[in-house]
Amino acid sequence: MTDLVTVGEATLRFSPPRGERIPTAREFVAHAGGPESNVAAAAATLDLDAVWLSKLPDTALGRRVVGDLRRHGVRTGVAWTDRGRTSTAFVERGAPAGATTIPDRENAAVTTMAPEDVPLGVVGDADTLFVSGATPTRSETLFETTATLLDVAGDADTTRAFDTRYAATNLGPEDARDVYDRLLDNVDLLFVDESDAETVFGLDGDVVPAAHSLRTRYGCETVVVTRDGTDHPVVGLAGESIYEVPPFEVETHDSAGAHDAFVGGFLAGRHHGEDVHGALRDGAATAALKRTVVGDAVVGSRRDVEAIRERRSE
Amino acid sequence: MTDLVTVGEATLRFSPPRGERIPTAREFVAHAGGPESNVAAAAATLDLDAVWLSKLPDTALGRRVVGDLRRHGVRTGVAWTDRGRTSTAFVERGAPAGATTIPDRENAAVTTMAPEDVPLGVVGDADTLFVSGATPTRSETLFETTATLLDVAGDADTTRAFDTRYAATNLGPEDARDVYDRLLDNVDLLFVDESDAETVFGLDGDVVPAAHSLRTRYGCETVVVTRDGTDHPVVGLAGESIYEVPPFEVETHDSAGAHDAFVGGFLAGRHHGEDVHGALRDGAATAALKRTVVGDAVVGSRRDVEAIRERRSE
Amino acid sequence: MTDLVTVGEATLRFSPPRGERIPTAREFVAHAGGPESNVAAAAATLDLDAVWLSKLPDTALGRRVVGDLRRHGVRTGVAWTDRGRTSTAFVERGAPAGATTIPDRENAAVTTMAPEDVPLGVVGDADTLFVSGATPTRSETLFETTATLLDVAGDADTTRAFDTRYAATNLGPEDARDVYDRLLDNVDLLFVDESDAETVFGLDGDVVPAAHSLRTRYGCETVVVTRDGTDHPVVGLAGESIYEVPPFEVETHDSAGAHDAFVGGFLAGRHHGEDVHGALRDGAATAALKRTVVGDAVVGSRRDVEAIRERRSE
Amino acid sequence: MTDLVTVGEATLRFSPPRGERIPTAREFVAHAGGPESNVAAAAATLDLDAVWLSKLPDTALGRRVVGDLRRHGVRTGVAWTDRGRTSTAFVERGAPAGATTIPDRENAAVTTMAPEDVPLGVVGDADTLFVSGATPTRSETLFETTATLLDVAGDADTTRAFDTRYAATNLGPEDARDVYDRLLDNVDLLFVDESDAETVFGLDGDVVPAAHSLRTRYGCETVVVTRDGTDHPVVGLAGESIYEVPPFEVETHDSAGAHDAFVGGFLAGRHHGEDVHGALRDGAATAALKRTVVGDAVVGSRRDVEAIRERRSE
Amino acid sequence: MTDLVTVGEATLRFSPPRGERIPTAREFVAHAGGPESNVAAAAATLDLDAVWLSKLPDTALGRRVVGDLRRHGVRTGVAWTDRGRTSTAFVERGAPAGATTIPDRENAAVTTMAPEDVPLGVVGDADTLFVSGATPTRSETLFETTATLLDVAGDADTTRAFDTRYAATNLGPEDARDVYDRLLDNVDLLFVDESDAETVFGLDGDVVPAAHSLRTRYGCETVVVTRDGTDHPVVGLAGESIYEVPPFEVETHDSAGAHDAFVGGFLAGRHHGEDVHGALRDGAATAALKRTVVGDAVVGSRRDVEAIRERRSE
Amino acid sequence: MTDLVTVGEATLRFSPPRGERIPTAREFVAHAGGPESNVAAAAATLDLDAVWLSKLPDTALGRRVVGDLRRHGVRTGVAWTDRGRTSTAFVERGAPAGATTIPDRENAAVTTMAPEDVPLGVVGDADTLFVSGATPTRSETLFETTATLLDVAGDADTTRAFDTRYAATNLGPEDARDVYDRLLDNVDLLFVDESDAETVFGLDGDVVPAAHSLRTRYGCETVVVTRDGTDHPVVGLAGESIYEVPPFEVETHDSAGAHDAFVGGFLAGRHHGEDVHGALRDGAATAALKRTVVGDAVVGSRRDVEAIRERRSE
Repeated sequence: MTDLVTVGEATLRFSPPRGERIPTAREFVAHAGGPESNVAAAAATLDLDAVWLSKLPDTALGRRVVGDLRRHGVRTGVAWTDRGRTSTAFVERGAPAGATTIPDRENAAVTTMAPEDVPLGVVGDADTLFVSGATPTRSETLFETTATLLDVAGDADTTRAFDTRYAATNLGPEDARDVYDRLLDNVDLLFVDESDAETVFGLDGDVVPAAHSLRTRYGCETVVVTRDGTDHPVVGLAGESIYEVPPFEVETHDSAGAHDAFVGGFLAGRHHGEDVHGALRDGAATAALKRTVVGDAVVGSRRDVEAIRERRSE
Repeated sequence: MTDLVTVGEATLRFSPPRGERIPTAREFVAHAGGPESNVAAAAATLDLDAVWLSKLPDTALGRRVVGDLRRHGVRTGVAWTDRGRTSTAFVERGAPAGATTIPDRENAAVTTMAPEDVPLGVVGDADTLFVSGATPTRSETLFETTATLLDVAGDADTTRAFDTRYAATNLGPEDARDVYDRLLDNVDLLFVDESDAETVFGLDGDVVPAAHSLRTRYGCETVVVTRDGTDHPVVGLAGESIYEVPPFEVETHDSAGAHDAFVGGFLAGRHHGEDVHGALRDGAATAALKRTVVGDAVVGSRRDVEAIRERRSE
Repeated sequence: MTDLVTVGEATLRFSPPRGERIPTAREFVAHAGGPESNVAAAAATLDLDAVWLSKLPDTALGRRVVGDLRRHGVRTGVAWTDRGRTSTAFVERGAPAGATTIPDRENAAVTTMAPEDVPLGVVGDADTLFVSGATPTRSETLFETTATLLDVAGDADTTRAFDTRYAATNLGPEDARDVYDRLLDNVDLLFVDESDAETVFGLDGDVVPAAHSLRTRYGCETVVVTRDGTDHPVVGLAGESIYEVPPFEVETHDSAGAHDAFVGGFLAGRHHGEDVHGALRDGAATAALKRTVVGDAVVGSRRDVEAIRERRSE
Repeated sequence: MTDLVTVGEATLRFSPPRGERIPTAREFVAHAGGPESNVAAAAATLDLDAVWLSKLPDTALGRRVVGDLRRHGVRTGVAWTDRGRTSTAFVERGAPAGATTIPDRENAAVTTMAPEDVPLGVVGDADTLFVSGATPTRSETLFETTATLLDVAGDADTTRAFDTRYAATNLGPEDARDVYDRLLDNVDLLFVDESDAETVFGLDGDVVPAAHSLRTRYGCETVVVTRDGTDHPVVGLAGESIYEVPPFEVETHDSAGAHDAFVGGFLAGRHHGEDVHGALRDGAATAALKRTVVGDAVVGSRRDVEAIRERRSE
Repeated sequence: MTDLVTVGEATLRFSPPRGERIPTAREFVAHAGGPESNVAAAAATLDLDAVWLSKLPDTALGRRVVGDLRRHGVRTGVAWTDRGRTSTAFVERGAPAGATTIPDRENAAVTTMAPEDVPLGVVGDADTLFVSGATPTRSETLFETTATLLDVAGDADTTRAFDTRYAATNLGPEDARDVYDRLLDNVDLLFVDESDAETVFGLDGDVVPAAHSLRTRYGCETVVVTRDGTDHPVVGLAGESIYEVPPFEVETHDSAGAHDAFVGGFLAGRHHGEDVHGALRDGAATAALKRTVVGDAVVGSRRDVEAIRERRSE
Repeated sequence: MTDLVTVGEATLRFSPPRGERIPTAREFVAHAGGPESNVAAAAATLDLDAVWLSKLPDTALGRRVVGDLRRHGVRTGVAWTDRGRTSTAFVERGAPAGATTIPDRENAAVTTMAPEDVPLGVVGDADTLFVSGATPTRSETLFETTATLLDVAGDADTTRAFDTRYAATNLGPEDARDVYDRLLDNVDLLFVDESDAETVFGLDGDVVPAAHSLRTRYGCETVVVTRDGTDHPVVGLAGESIYEVPPFEVETHDSAGAHDAFVGGFLAGRHHGEDVHGALRDGAATAALKRTVVGDAVVGSRRDVEAIRERRSE
């Protein structure tokens, strides 16, 4: 039985060295990243048997994506096709004033991933299913596939986890909310960033009532509200309980993917039997580890995450 | 007055180091290349005032293309747009057995370059206009633009040079021949590779009659037949005269763009007053110089080309 | 059911850039390599479900080895331990006169891999088991483990493939022959390099009688004799039939691991239903592909191997 | 008509990676830099048609300088010569305690650039002429050339901008003041760093009276006083008005050339019709963008500068 | 006469680039480091004639260590052997949360360095001998060798300097104290880190009484207590005098080896005639310089150290 | 007693990667090289105690040169000065058609090295002194210093070895011959390249009579004639004997410095007691080893050279 199934798109990202820019850099470092693949990589780092399902063109670029994720310990289940592109993006690292990300994701093969491209049995056999808002908003087909996945998981008692990821939807607030409304009743565990809560649902101010409001709206068992930057604690609501965990301080080399590492760490904590508070701590420690590493996916081991956790418990 | 105007597409190419492959390489070196931009770079290396005209998205990728060409001494005239992509390609260098080029050129901005995107006055004022078969076969719009360019150049007594570049057309032989038939009556100087002559026009065997046949078919003043590899001489027909120039031997680091360097060197030789034989020698020396350099565009100076030419005259 | 199980040691190899040497190089490129892991990587490249079983210390170095192999598409089954080292080696690439390999493999964790460290059920369920002479000669424990593996495979009708790999045994000819004599009666498919046949078994001169002699000695169904360098054909004996396949010519960047790529390609060919002749061709094409790539493991796809095969059939 | 003409020297700078030093670094990154070329690059980034005029040896090093500047969008007008060197410098990046710059600029070709080496017509046709104190103090010939340039510009109503750049003069305060006194009556727009005002003109304390004093001394229309570091605002005096603009905060990767980027940004702002206050903001934003980028010249686009400007207006 | 003799082990350290980790980095930068070799390098940077004595295998790795140290200006006296390993370590730079150092020092050749492997005459002729606690705790043989060295130096009036370096001993506090007790009566100048004083000797709280207590315990002429991090001053006790010198602020790129650079700077200061206060300043400035440079050994010159010292005296 | 003293200039050379050129390369690799320092490095590789004497500016560039040579095992005796430059050169590696070397050696500090800058006692105590024609032709001062060195060595029975190195003299044939005539009567062992013999002394055709003629002209005990490329044997004349040794075949990565490696290997062979024939073989093997390594100086060990020698003796 698989611990975690994630389904979505991964992009092959090309980055010039820190301090250099796209117009003049000689070399670009390549690595694969995407909300669901990053979450799977974080979970695998914490020893979960994590699978990422997707659809890719059968080219060297497509195989590159798979090899990168496998190196991070993720198992991959890919529907190979001769049609459509591998998503690429050209990303300046760090956060310089004029930093630029040029996504180049038109006509990606994944946008044609229909339910029959997904081994649904794997989803039913899994402990947890994870999908982000980036997936159902990529194409009509992916919306249907996402809905099917949540249905299948619901029928099989697979925990359904969802991350709103509004910024990745490329939609306006109302269209995004509409998508969420059509899917989230079918979700057990909802991750939402504070800024998404504000922009999409108009929930600004204190995050606890915001989380409460979302839990009520969609009937999720657990709602976790993440926060931008490293200043504020994340907040989790489960049943009547409210938990807060502040971020861990580390030397940041690249904050890309830190949010996804949090999600992967949280899911791994839950899988290992932690309560919501412990899982929030695992998530925060995994996000901190991610920030020390260049690239979208966390690199390290469960011991590394524990070492970060321990530092503050004392 | 401009010496040479070239019009077409340039692709931003990403290559892993020699001996590494797309699925596992860490770094990719970026550089711009395309038939017309490579020709312009070669001509500029030989001190021509060479301009490349194109259409690009107003992004860091588009500006990268322009910066690369400017560094090679090419002036650029770009219609900037907010629509369409910058063409990319992922290219394994050298010629290993399984080497792979993955072009990613769908929906490139250049495919929408209409005649009104081109400063036609520059074409009329130029000494020579150069276009390859890659351009008119990219889109209907580019076909019309190419035809317009040849008309404008014809009216202005600008020399019209054309390179068949069949492999870059992505067409079958018949469709390609059809495009050539609609354009080449309007051409003064035709470059055709031996393999194109064979595949598209069925002209195999000796290259001299092949060149003669093409000259008759299209009424070009001069026809130059290039040859694959570095074993056979190039052949030029002008009037009743036939010229042959064997390739120069060099230590090859990258043969990409050598054909285009030949064309640019030939055009520069003509511009500097060389006869067809001298221009063929300039072309062959420029192609040899290109092979010593990694990338699509030749790097060096007129002196470097002359040094190669001299080596054999002795 | 697994297609191929390989069992053995992988070494983390650190190489300076070509043309630089250990005493003065600034940077060393790391990658994992070993006879059995290389064979598994080659088989995985040809779409086999290939597993590599081993024992490693639970450190970042050990995880590095696993990540590298997973990236090549190999599944890994590792007994993690807190004792013993990860094997390392410092290797100057290419074949300069004074090139140096400094193996640093003392006290490697793998030398303590007992039969109970190996999931023997996986071996019994597999189509083919592969082990090289490097494994049973590393330690007494590994000899016993190897013997057990061959027994288990024999009982389960798993094809047992073995590569003599004399140079990797660090033994004298007589000791090595002694090891072979104790194991090879239990082998179905034997790979032996021409030089091993000569040094260990005194079989010099024509390779066909040498292969015949080894088949008789050990009662193997199939014997394949590989040859040093790229000048001579490999030879396979199966039943009364003799097959020869010459090497494919490619631009060589690194010949490390080409022998293992041959073995992996041969096993994949057999798995895909090729006869011995076809499998020899698959092996030779995979070895050729390996030579175009830097590192111990082949990188590419089944299509790449087929492209090389096709080139000569014409 | 050209928007901006700058005249001066550019140095080919070789830098080890950050954290490495000249005695032990393996690799040095090369790029061209100089007060006037940096200003031209900044102005070109902001879409001005900017030309840099100079004199260089006709070698690969000289061509390198030109290619680097062209890549930044600067047009170049170079008097090529067979005499004299290309200026080089070996520069440790960042600001470590013992950081070292070793300039190697003796006998540079540019020191022989006489008025007849400069296309004076270009200066007369330009909107603005820019020269720094580094130029007239390099040689007697360059002093005369600078004086001629200011005369020609004055006659043609070309705006004359001058940056004192005392540290680059290699002169004592009195000699430098003497040079300034002989040239600055002929200047419309004067840039002076606070430390230059103090060291050369004895104007310490508040910068506003210092600027006022310099404007009176030389009769310049506008005086801009820049400040060391990123703590204090720049100050501009024009007519009776006084403007202050604080620096923009960014992640600094390399502060080399930030002063020149300020000047280029200011000149571009003026050219685009901004008043002194707006131009100071453009300058400050361009300097901030420069700090995010490694090298002497800013890399980016007018949009990047605007994005930085916008951040604070809110 | 040699100014400084140091005796001990150097490790060949392989580090991925900052922000990358061992499991996924492509390249590792190699450099040699060790307490005694780092001290010698720092002293040589300050113009001392410094020798490092050790025992190494006669391989390219062993020669690499020697070449690295020679490049830093250290003379080397090595007993070459065919037995034993070169110590290696795989070190993630910077201080990310989960940073890892994997030492791989078992069976190093140096552990067999007996007194007869050391040119004792060099020790007797030297001005100062330096050894750290890392050396006598590596093996029984090295303990005897260390004791012999201190005896020889004592007989010859060579100043005996010792650094406790508890963390490098791999011993528990009691075993370490036992080693120190058997050696330190024979020492003139003792360096001890505040944390060692606390852990090994139970001396916490104010460092002055701690230093006093150690001076009394071992009868050393001078005791210097260093402090973790860059927040607290170092403290020196000599006779009845107490000196404090705060650290110098610099842009830190790598703090590895800063403690050793302090020791080398202090010894050089003493050698150049500085009193304890001046030597503490030299030490602190050398440590600061080290922090600006990547690697274990300081790179620079006496001028660089003086430049740092001067900055604060003003 | 020193085995070998060499006296001359070393240049800090900056090279782009193979296949890249000065105008467009991003990175340049630095290393020190010069006839006398290369010879010393080769001799040190073969275990000689070799010293290089020179004069350098006391800058990071000067210290870089010294550190590079020390890393190669050369001891250095440098007269540090505050005047004059470090020689630099910008060198494209390999031998592409248009490859360029831009020497930048004007006003080098070494040109002022007077006899009193040289520790003449070291020369008198040495076994052998080596100087090349590049040294006395750099300046009047260096001519006098060279003459003094040869005198001192002659008086002390130090073997005087000299390499004509005509191409490095920057003189015409007659001027060079004049310099040689004034110095070479004082030389015991003369190295002359075949092309120098031809150009300077008009000795073309067979090399044996050429060597004979030079030995007669200058009264040298031994004359060694080297040959361009790797096709022809080197020839040595000593007394009435004539020896020929063909070059060893290796994979060439960089032929820079191979001639100097030959000289160093020959001198080391003589020092180790080889006769002229054996020393020629040592020289040829050292030159072969050099070709396998990038840079001006050979890297390796006496074993590496012996391994190459052995390969052919069989």
